[in-house]
Amino acid sequence: LADPRIAEHAKIVVNHSCKVKKGDAVLVLTSTEGIPLVREIASEVGRIGGQILVILQEESIRRAHVLAAGDDVIGVTPKPLQQLIEGIDVLIQVMATSNTKEMSDIPPHKMMLSARAMGPLFLIIEQKRWNITLHPTPALAQDAGKSLEAFTDFVYGATLVDWSAMERKMQVLADKMAATKKVRIVGKETEISLSIEGRMPIIDSGEKNLPGGEVFTSPLEGSANGTIYFDKPIMYYGREIKGVHLTFEDGYVTEQRAEVGGESLDALLGTDEGARRLGELGIGMNRGITEFSKNILFDEKMGDTIHMAVGHAFEAAGGRNKSDIHIDMIKGMKEGGAIYFDDEPVYINGKFVWE
Amino acid sequence: LADPRIAEHAKIVVNHSCKVKKGDAVLVLTSTEGIPLVREIASEVGRIGGQILVILQEESIRRAHVLAAGDDVIGVTPKPLQQLIEGIDVLIQVMATSNTKEMSDIPPHKMMLSARAMGPLFLIIEQKRWNITLHPTPALAQDAGKSLEAFTDFVYGATLVDWSAMERKMQVLADKMAATKKVRIVGKETEISLSIEGRMPIIDSGEKNLPGGEVFTSPLEGSANGTIYFDKPIMYYGREIKGVHLTFEDGYVTEQRAEVGGESLDALLGTDEGARRLGELGIGMNRGITEFSKNILFDEKMGDTIHMAVGHAFEAAGGRNKSDIHIDMIKGMKEGGAIYFDDEPVYINGKFVWE
Repeated sequence: LADPRIAEHAKIVVNHSCKVKKGDAVLVLTSTEGIPLVREIASEVGRIGGQILVILQEESIRRAHVLAAGDDVIGVTPKPLQQLIEGIDVLIQVMATSNTKEMSDIPPHKMMLSARAMGPLFLIIEQKRWNITLHPTPALAQDAGKSLEAFTDFVYGATLVDWSAMERKMQVLADKMAATKKVRIVGKETEISLSIEGRMPIIDSGEKNLPGGEVFTSPLEGSANGTIYFDKPIMYYGREIKGVHLTFEDGYVTEQRAEVGGESLDALLGTDEGARRLGELGIGMNRGITEFSKNILFDEKMGDTIHMAVGHAFEAAGGRNKSDIHIDMIKGMKEGGAIYFDDEPVYINGKFVWE
Repeated sequence: LADPRIAEHAKIVVNHSCKVKKGDAVLVLTSTEGIPLVREIASEVGRIGGQILVILQEESIRRAHVLAAGDDVIGVTPKPLQQLIEGIDVLIQVMATSNTKEMSDIPPHKMMLSARAMGPLFLIIEQKRWNITLHPTPALAQDAGKSLEAFTDFVYGATLVDWSAMERKMQVLADKMAATKKVRIVGKETEISLSIEGRMPIIDSGEKNLPGGEVFTSPLEGSANGTIYFDKPIMYYGREIKGVHLTFEDGYVTEQRAEVGGESLDALLGTDEGARRLGELGIGMNRGITEFSKNILFDEKMGDTIHMAVGHAFEAAGGRNKSDIHIDMIKGMKEGGAIYFDDEPVYINGKFVWE
């Protein structure tokens, strides 16, 4: 018998996250190991009266194509996929890779071209109801340093929760952010300030991301000044970038350094003009995620962390930065980190001041 | 190491069958077990400079959706898929099912509704370069009564052949068909005649189907008269229909009977008006296919067989019959079968008269 949590997960994705209704055309992107979840999603979508189409997003196939194709081919936005996405109502991406390192031997400039070609698709997706979620696989468990059973429990522990209750907690922080001009973050090798004046804080209570559990916005593009050290590793198409130091001057990255994967970091920041500016400041609020799992979907929501992303900003938040990339970088705040809103402390010594 | 025949197969599909060229958008439909072939197709398409998008056509997902959905939902042609197909240049369907009986417990009327909803898509696909091929799986080997290794040898034996040489042999028959008005077929419990006057014979030398190996056309819609017995079983969405007897009067099926699966046969013929008329008369010419494998892609090409399909006709052949189905039925001719073109024997005693 299948794990009953798979069907429960599907019901949350379809109903809570994507609000699928009769007549909706639902597009699902998955790799093969996600099929048990996709099957339950198909059943729930069918019950509601929606249609479903499944794109196989198998990295080994993409790798074969990208390796064989010339740069001129990789760099082209696939028109049929674009038309397809324009025509659908809901997009659900199921992360279920069988090898997180499958793209690790593709030359970085090819990955960059490929990512850039996909850029226009994200602008269309942003206008739809969409969700990214994860189905546990051995490869993802391995990256998290866990057995498949323990990782599966970890995933469902963070996913099958009372999203309304978490939303109420996040609303407290979001209300404060809405009234804030200047954010200052201090911590290990970190002293940075930026402005969020007039920008909208957004709560992810399991809608766009499942699990959700963060409050985020897009900072003013020219406002970041100072230095920040991200202690959590970034996984980018199978490459690890670790120990990133960024220095900002008037919103622009003027210096970068990584303890591991400096070349990949340079390539990312060189993608385009917007890749050197912030697209996001996020604060993790999901204390159900107690451990780092080397998976951004979970890591950026982890309680007692903040993250910033270079690259594309959120229009819904008022962000204006444009880029073909959006790379989240995470910093643990529990040990010595502090957040100030307009010079008032909001987070200090591992707690929000109202906790 | 992968079986080198997989890459050879992919090269034939991409180059010989579909003539993929730089800039083409290639859509591949596959289930998970087809991925080794799809990976090689992706590589070859990339090398040529085409783009590739892969739809996961996993029957267990389709089953879950169809079982849960109401008839009104199943009966709707999926618009996003339609738009997608309109936008592509080449469609490749890889048959690689993991269970040929996966759809066997769906009520027949739901299968009929679902097939009918797909009808409009075939009209669009017919305008494209397209190919159906097969990647060997344990389930398909099982249906053929073979080990996976023996079935794999069987598949590549019929597929990786000199298609130009086979084309020359088929041209002899096609030339005769082009000059023929009346076709008469006799054999076990069979005495039927029909007209192909003015219709175009078509040679499949591995283009639309891989393997190919048949010469076929669409008979005049009102011309079939008599009775025919198809001794080879039909597999239709995991249901077996066996020992079909059809009686035609002026092109219309007036009586049908099956030794096994009569209810499914009735449902198929009841799909629509065109489902009771012939859409195809085909003559199998691929003597590399020496055994019946319960797979229509191979069986209809088998040497010493003929087949007829009820349902949708081939416009390219001049056929006018319209239907949401196209169901091939096969008859062995080696034992006592004979084919006459305008009352001259062309096939008799297991041989074409010019052999």
